[in-house]
Amino acid sequence: MNTPASPKAVVLLSGGLDSATALAMASDRGYDCYVLSFDYGQRSLTELNAAKEIAKQLKAVEHRVIRLHLEDFGGSALTDHSIDVPEEETDEIPVTYVPARNTVFLSLALGWAEVLEADTIFIGVNAVDYSGYPDCRPEYIAAFETMANLATKRGVSGDPIRIETPLIDLSKEQIIQAGTALGVDYGLTVSCYQADDDGRACGVCDSCRLRTQGFVDAGIKDPTRYQ
Amino acid sequence: MNTPASPKAVVLLSGGLDSATALAMASDRGYDCYVLSFDYGQRSLTELNAAKEIAKQLKAVEHRVIRLHLEDFGGSALTDHSIDVPEEETDEIPVTYVPARNTVFLSLALGWAEVLEADTIFIGVNAVDYSGYPDCRPEYIAAFETMANLATKRGVSGDPIRIETPLIDLSKEQIIQAGTALGVDYGLTVSCYQADDDGRACGVCDSCRLRTQGFVDAGIKDPTRYQ
Repeated sequence: MNTPASPKAVVLLSGGLDSATALAMASDRGYDCYVLSFDYGQRSLTELNAAKEIAKQLKAVEHRVIRLHLEDFGGSALTDHSIDVPEEETDEIPVTYVPARNTVFLSLALGWAEVLEADTIFIGVNAVDYSGYPDCRPEYIAAFETMANLATKRGVSGDPIRIETPLIDLSKEQIIQAGTALGVDYGLTVSCYQADDDGRACGVCDSCRLRTQGFVDAGIKDPTRYQ
Repeated sequence: MNTPASPKAVVLLSGGLDSATALAMASDRGYDCYVLSFDYGQRSLTELNAAKEIAKQLKAVEHRVIRLHLEDFGGSALTDHSIDVPEEETDEIPVTYVPARNTVFLSLALGWAEVLEADTIFIGVNAVDYSGYPDCRPEYIAAFETMANLATKRGVSGDPIRIETPLIDLSKEQIIQAGTALGVDYGLTVSCYQADDDGRACGVCDSCRLRTQGFVDAGIKDPTRYQ
């Protein structure tokens, strides 16, 4: 008797805490996970090294890293080395915003999903801790899914693709608890906007503050290595 | 007295006939044109050389070429050198389809538009001669625009971005007539899926057939150089 093939999912993985958790959730739901990361001129290449380790730990079927030259566009502290990463909280859309980042990443995930005949794309966006990024909102994700199904052969054939955002309504505390239950090794993940070459976090940027507080709230020992 | 600054547009340019015409139209409408091309592992690098010449001829403010490694995904005759380009017409979605291509290209255009504070993106898609590509249909473009305005700071601030498709309802004949009136040098453009290194067209592929017939129908001398 043949067992049916597992469904395939493309999973976006940055190397951070959220996307690692999304990958663990996709895997837990029975998907064969094809993991996609981007080298887009971000300061923190250690994040990409982390992604490789995480993909391995969570038994991805395949992990691809696409080189993108978004730094040519400028306009963000994450890719423009002449702008300082802010250490203060703000209500405005932060300078760490990379233009159209999730749209670009999801688009490339869509291309790979079409080739693989994967029916699902997982992205670890979060509307609670979304830091003002417009492309982390549920209405954005829904609009992307609608567009994706008009863009592709799969949509035309009536077998739609779904964009799954398992973290969208979770607090950092809940994300950490869920991922820990699924065996994510958060010691491998890097969230810091300005981690050093060894992957050690600054402890002061917006991303570090949210992460540190998340472990405190979850009552789970923080495995992050700080500078 | 200061003259008001011209509005900015990001214009996608492949180096083919359609996108060259779209660029001429954007320029004719008074936009400062920021031209974007992609090196995505296509067979015909001569198309990119053509794009550079066209951007110059049509006085683009800037021309950027982004290297994308879509060939890693495989799945199309345009990027997978082991699949032959078909010479027969077909009702099915053709093998020359590149997965999610317009979505990826528009997404990167969106990123650049956001940095430039451009309010418009031009793309030379055409629903008449669209060869079965789902991402050339008006409903796809409308869905992309909706998504784009949810994705970006610009959309959040209530100053929406528009995706302009000036060729969408035009026949090849009408495109050629319009572009000729605007001074497009079609001798610079390359449409062939398998042009040789000197930019000479095969004359037999789907794209060549449409183009040749377009010049015949327009009553305009075909400047294409054939092999």
